[in-house]
Amino acid sequence: MAELDLIRYIREHTPGAPGVLVGPGDDAAVLAWAGADAVVLATDAVVEGTHFASGAAPEVVGWKALCENLSDLAAMGAEPVACTATLALRPELPESFARGFHAGLVRAAERFACPLVGGDVVTTAGPIVATVTVLGRAPGSAVWTRGGARAGDTLFVTGELGGSLASGKHFSFVPRLEEMRALRERGCVTACIDISDGLARDLGHLCRESSTGAEIEQASIPLSAAARAAADPLASALGDGEDFELLFAVQPGSADALAREWSLATPLARIGRLTPPEEGLRLAGPGGTRPLPDLGYEHPVG
Amino acid sequence: MAELDLIRYIREHTPGAPGVLVGPGDDAAVLAWAGADAVVLATDAVVEGTHFASGAAPEVVGWKALCENLSDLAAMGAEPVACTATLALRPELPESFARGFHAGLVRAAERFACPLVGGDVVTTAGPIVATVTVLGRAPGSAVWTRGGARAGDTLFVTGELGGSLASGKHFSFVPRLEEMRALRERGCVTACIDISDGLARDLGHLCRESSTGAEIEQASIPLSAAARAAADPLASALGDGEDFELLFAVQPGSADALAREWSLATPLARIGRLTPPEEGLRLAGPGGTRPLPDLGYEHPVG
Repeated sequence: MAELDLIRYIREHTPGAPGVLVGPGDDAAVLAWAGADAVVLATDAVVEGTHFASGAAPEVVGWKALCENLSDLAAMGAEPVACTATLALRPELPESFARGFHAGLVRAAERFACPLVGGDVVTTAGPIVATVTVLGRAPGSAVWTRGGARAGDTLFVTGELGGSLASGKHFSFVPRLEEMRALRERGCVTACIDISDGLARDLGHLCRESSTGAEIEQASIPLSAAARAAADPLASALGDGEDFELLFAVQPGSADALAREWSLATPLARIGRLTPPEEGLRLAGPGGTRPLPDLGYEHPVG
Repeated sequence: MAELDLIRYIREHTPGAPGVLVGPGDDAAVLAWAGADAVVLATDAVVEGTHFASGAAPEVVGWKALCENLSDLAAMGAEPVACTATLALRPELPESFARGFHAGLVRAAERFACPLVGGDVVTTAGPIVATVTVLGRAPGSAVWTRGGARAGDTLFVTGELGGSLASGKHFSFVPRLEEMRALRERGCVTACIDISDGLARDLGHLCRESSTGAEIEQASIPLSAAARAAADPLASALGDGEDFELLFAVQPGSADALAREWSLATPLARIGRLTPPEEGLRLAGPGGTRPLPDLGYEHPVG
């Protein structure tokens, strides 16, 4: 089953409806609502053997299941409001698994002000599947889609990239909500995505939706310690999955001031710029400019 | 793993938050919102081998996955707004499964005006797990919880009960949204639940939340054709799962007019009344009044 083909199929076969400002295909859905704020919904599932190993501590699975959804809200520029969760479990599993999962989820829910407001627990004969849905609000109905950028915009990324699975960051990352708020206050972001499939692939998503190309400066890509320790640090930063950092575009006239005035602890790196679509995705490195390697992370079945 | 113990645990260990009007434990979550309407969220998962057989047509699985959530919205007195879905699939499954699931879900989404606005497709090595989350709105923030009824209120049920799995109704039922609207217009409902675990068990949920007992008249229970064909029709109507009918309480002074003026095609049956809590759950039959059998449906693992 080709996931991207399927997603395209679903986008093409899902009718629109009045009030749905952003439907399937972005990081979250956005709905017009009575009042000044739009409702924002995002949902993600994590599966034993695919997104976490069978021996993983349930607390970190619960934390991750909510935080990867909060990362989607951050990528939309939306504030968390509430979440729901479903958990499909084998009946022979100790109840401590579900309690641990819940504890991790609630810990994240409290820390990030996104209360758990509902859910379902069901029985499966196979791998554990946990699904979390987050409800957010977009003040004044303004959100950051993937499709709002233009050629000429400057590309930034939060944090450091690569090696998230090797370092354990994929279980302990902090969704970039504070960073999102700082950016929203400035009003300069034209498009945003959270990096879950690797920089190269998620940049491709943003460019496709914005109808642009991009040129990335190799020396500007912020490498994590785990990426620097990898056999191919660049490939790790471009292709490893589950960074859960924000990749975003800003109006070119706002880039210098943003870089200069950024005061949060999380690093902010200016990594390149968007180009006309016919230029494709390129990487400017010591040996010149070449096509950006088509690296990207797909979850194995373990 | 005892599901009810776990649900209690979750309710007790999930912090409340400002704006959460109804959190875990009812049919759906309710959140105060800017504007006159509250946001309502419900979520449910269906699992291959638990809620549907491996050979089930994916279209009916998709239909059911959304409709059981819409039944939860109906039970809250809430209007559907939008839904999201996640699907965990084995990679060797043909893509036609996911497309069929999506087609069934979208068919229900169009029929009941609840557009699909987002989702996730992930890989599992085991049984298929589909999770749907619905977003609804409660006009004027008025909802029907399970806990709003009082001793003396009259109990009604929509439709006919029992034999849903035998007859296939569990795959083709129509969520009781029209009936909900007719009831909401009258303003007489004090508590409501949809019957998914069988009348006896779901009545128990309503009574526990409302701090009441109940007395049901055996002759008034509407038996489905499948229940009448069963070895024990009463046990089928009391204990079979997945009826997806509404069980609700109304103020005693409104019961006669409701029964007299009900004009929808779906039958409405007055089946009993709520009593003080110390009287427990009772069944009035030809041989006198006895405790209501503690029947109820739990999904097997198949």
